[in-house]
Amino acid sequence: MTRRNYIFAPGPVNVPPQILAATAKPVIHHRSADFDPLFAKVSEDLKYVFQTKNPVVIFASSGTGAMEAAIVSSASPGDRVLSLEAGKFGERWGEIAQAYGLGVKRLQCEWGKAVDPQIVADELKEHPETKAVYIELCETSTATVENVKAVAEITRNTETLLIVDAVSGLCAEELRMDEWGVDLVGAGSQKALMLPPGLGFVAVGEKAREAIKKSTTPKFYFSLEKALKELEKNTTPFTPAVSLLFGLEVALEMIREEGIENVWKRHARLAEASRHAVKAMNLELYSQNPANTCTAVKAPEGIEGGKIVKGLKEMGITIAGGQGHLKGKIFRFATLGWYNEYDVLTIIAAIEKILQKLGHKFQPGAGVNAAMEYFQTN
Amino acid sequence: MTRRNYIFAPGPVNVPPQILAATAKPVIHHRSADFDPLFAKVSEDLKYVFQTKNPVVIFASSGTGAMEAAIVSSASPGDRVLSLEAGKFGERWGEIAQAYGLGVKRLQCEWGKAVDPQIVADELKEHPETKAVYIELCETSTATVENVKAVAEITRNTETLLIVDAVSGLCAEELRMDEWGVDLVGAGSQKALMLPPGLGFVAVGEKAREAIKKSTTPKFYFSLEKALKELEKNTTPFTPAVSLLFGLEVALEMIREEGIENVWKRHARLAEASRHAVKAMNLELYSQNPANTCTAVKAPEGIEGGKIVKGLKEMGITIAGGQGHLKGKIFRFATLGWYNEYDVLTIIAAIEKILQKLGHKFQPGAGVNAAMEYFQTN
Repeated sequence: MTRRNYIFAPGPVNVPPQILAATAKPVIHHRSADFDPLFAKVSEDLKYVFQTKNPVVIFASSGTGAMEAAIVSSASPGDRVLSLEAGKFGERWGEIAQAYGLGVKRLQCEWGKAVDPQIVADELKEHPETKAVYIELCETSTATVENVKAVAEITRNTETLLIVDAVSGLCAEELRMDEWGVDLVGAGSQKALMLPPGLGFVAVGEKAREAIKKSTTPKFYFSLEKALKELEKNTTPFTPAVSLLFGLEVALEMIREEGIENVWKRHARLAEASRHAVKAMNLELYSQNPANTCTAVKAPEGIEGGKIVKGLKEMGITIAGGQGHLKGKIFRFATLGWYNEYDVLTIIAAIEKILQKLGHKFQPGAGVNAAMEYFQTN
Repeated sequence: MTRRNYIFAPGPVNVPPQILAATAKPVIHHRSADFDPLFAKVSEDLKYVFQTKNPVVIFASSGTGAMEAAIVSSASPGDRVLSLEAGKFGERWGEIAQAYGLGVKRLQCEWGKAVDPQIVADELKEHPETKAVYIELCETSTATVENVKAVAEITRNTETLLIVDAVSGLCAEELRMDEWGVDLVGAGSQKALMLPPGLGFVAVGEKAREAIKKSTTPKFYFSLEKALKELEKNTTPFTPAVSLLFGLEVALEMIREEGIENVWKRHARLAEASRHAVKAMNLELYSQNPANTCTAVKAPEGIEGGKIVKGLKEMGITIAGGQGHLKGKIFRFATLGWYNEYDVLTIIAAIEKILQKLGHKFQPGAGVNAAMEYFQTN
């Protein structure tokens, strides 16, 4: 038969056919009445996935663009900001702050561990003038979930903004923007939102909206001030990616129907089963605080991680390797978005297959069995 | 029957079903071998539509994002640049340069007229330190085509870059980047490239590549330097909008098959027939140097332009009104992208219908007949 291809990468993800079909609808004009109900609906439904009453801005961009918008719109050149960096994506936000001349402290934290909230408390005590703290919801490069709730408890009653990168984590990890007191959250479409790439999102809290008014960092396309102003009029400053918005409409309906808490639970369950399977295959998890967004596994002794990724690719299965200094040392897979327990069995079975081929010692079937056992009882 | 909707706006445009279908293909991972042939092919075919041997960068963004990339990557804060502004879009590029602290001279030129190239010659003589000149290929707000070739003759043997906004004009108006000596060209997907919105393009000439290395303007997502570096490795710095690239592949095949010069000629023929029809309906063109991208028509005495746009909208037909001080004074329609002579008859017939309803005096059928006569002999 024609080869079936599978995506088990931490984004882009498998897009449900009903969403793909929606993105292929005839284009409508974004400056016409046709657009109004669509944009109003997705803007409203987006609030639900961020668990916020605050406005959510939509950009035609990748998730990096959304994070750039959050960073350049919330501080001015020279302002002190704190970038917590425990992986490739954390580093990126520090780089953006640097590129725009913010007075960024790029705090290098241990990869594969959650950042200790006490570090943030100490930093803010010493530097109460800090305008913003950047943290990941999930650091995708290490498959580690951060303790955003605890960090938000530290920042919420201060002048300091908390900016959360939820590009990969949104809908996969618990995130309660308003309840926790998070100020800005960036996200992307090609993760648990189950869409193709091309949309970036920024949810903007009240404290952030005040800061945005004062920011003098040069910006234009990624100005949240501009975007918020147009959002009030139910539109966007620049041409939106309308076909992806059609898909977003369907994706948000699917999430509302399942319920965001159930979506989080499903991701947790699939990720926990995956972790059980990993251990049963005589492998080690890389992260000490593993995320539900994706799972990072240490390449077994004597087997280069890239060979596992490449071997799976030859079988039509896409996962991800390590980035930066983790290249060749780990591999990462995910059931992120529109995936269920049978998908977990599929990817685990495929991993078993390639590991056997590459000579890793483990009990064949142990991974799949461990996942099935977990599903039976959870 | 269920109402059929028609788009005759100067973007977004009617997207051919084969392109829509391509955008709905299963998503592939952009950091995997699946992506390589697609990206190599669209990158190569894009050169053809810009008529260049130079690299063409693709952004997940609107056309404004592409223009921001060209502007922020080609000069440094304080550098003198010259923005030729004869409409809403020309003004936007001046605003971007201002937002990033460039020493921009925003030259207000008469709307609806092509900018006299002599102005550029005089400016550059007086200010040979000018780093870049910004000009439209088509100023969409006035439906005016600029004399890019003549302006390029002035800049090409100087240190000054010529940056052309071809967001709406690409493929609709003649543009020979290399032959004319244009340095940077920005474009968007939702115009004559026949795609949904969401992709921005920048073609980067050799002189521009040298300037890009020296630019200190803060940037990250829209850094052409970053994008060019990754393009050499057949990839993008940030997640590309893969599904739109699938559509782009088909669109570029269609354009190659027709031939870019034939595509330009087709746009010229449809636009000329439209102009004949306009005059036959006892209406006046707004522009003194009308574009082939779209046609701007003065609202007849006593009829507010918005009523024409709104009346057509009620019939399921989308055109555009005037922007800025032209609001209510003109209306604009286009056969931009995948349109033929029957489409011209459709939009002219619809305009006849609404004008009759609004009480404009003209010979019913005169517009359609004038277009048909033109097509018979041209």
